[in-house]
Amino acid sequence: MDSRTEQILDFLKTTDGAKNILRKGYLGDGSRRESIAEHMWHLAIWAMLLHREIGFENDLLKTLKLVLTHDLVEIYAGDTYAYDDKGIDGQREREERGAKKLFGMLPDDLGKEFRALWDEFEETKTPESRFAKALDNIQGFAQNCISGGKSWKENGIGKERTFSRTAFPRETDPVFAEILDRLYETADKEGAWGTRGPENP
Amino acid sequence: MDSRTEQILDFLKTTDGAKNILRKGYLGDGSRRESIAEHMWHLAIWAMLLHREIGFENDLLKTLKLVLTHDLVEIYAGDTYAYDDKGIDGQREREERGAKKLFGMLPDDLGKEFRALWDEFEETKTPESRFAKALDNIQGFAQNCISGGKSWKENGIGKERTFSRTAFPRETDPVFAEILDRLYETADKEGAWGTRGPENP
Repeated sequence: MDSRTEQILDFLKTTDGAKNILRKGYLGDGSRRESIAEHMWHLAIWAMLLHREIGFENDLLKTLKLVLTHDLVEIYAGDTYAYDDKGIDGQREREERGAKKLFGMLPDDLGKEFRALWDEFEETKTPESRFAKALDNIQGFAQNCISGGKSWKENGIGKERTFSRTAFPRETDPVFAEILDRLYETADKEGAWGTRGPENP
Repeated sequence: MDSRTEQILDFLKTTDGAKNILRKGYLGDGSRRESIAEHMWHLAIWAMLLHREIGFENDLLKTLKLVLTHDLVEIYAGDTYAYDDKGIDGQREREERGAKKLFGMLPDDLGKEFRALWDEFEETKTPESRFAKALDNIQGFAQNCISGGKSWKENGIGKERTFSRTAFPRETDPVFAEILDRLYETADKEGAWGTRGPENP
């Protein structure tokens, strides 16, 4: 077998690992936590459905590539909870090592392409990466809402703490703001918020 | 809230269901079966990595849309096992009803777009849908290989029965054939094949 194809096949086997990395948020029915593979897939569906609604006239293919790959480094670095202030220390270094290891498996040109996608998402400067990041935030929030705040309750995350995660999509586009208003309304109605306790000061 | 946005949000919540529909094949470590959301995500990564290798000069964005949505109807229709000859009876009708119900949730223009993607994948006539279908077959096969044939063993699927699932990607491109040869080699070495028993004649 061509060694180039072999490298690609090994990478594809390794990316199966994205189905084993679980986020803090649950599936809608609360039966288990969402894998990063499922999260990345769902973001692509959000992008396909909302790009016209927000008048996005940039590169949808690039946007899909960004959302579909943005969490791949977590296969080696693990998922860092958005509200885990301690975990966020060192996250960048862990992910940087993960990126080197993971994308280093690929033939050079493809490794560079995947690395550039990850950098673009992380830097969040281009229209595509700003759209992708807004979707990342809003889908994570929506997932907690539709699972009745199971993870917010487990982790003592009250309503106010979520504002920092929803500010970016809210300011990105009025359609996102409208969706967030509806999601907050539902979360309020269902009492989805967590409360701080001795373990969640 | 705008009723159009409301319809889209309801659809996005419903598509969370794709994380609860499990295929017969397992994750690489055998810990659980793969969800159709994970399967659709993985196909997109396969497409991103292989399109240049097979000299695919058609529309990659369309290909990604096809693979990312092709199993959505299973949210209502359930997954039909590729080797379940009885289950395949009535599959088309179940999926047709699923498609009407699911895509009918969306505003008309978006519902039509998603329905057209599903039809295109099912008809497998365009270059994009042929690429997508080949990936669908090859990823399903690879997933069984990397999980040591756990599902083949559970369902009594021997090597010969898999040939019908790998013939299409094999004839589609020499790179796919090369990958399949390597996967068959590994499956042979690891004794991944199932054997027929009284329940799997």
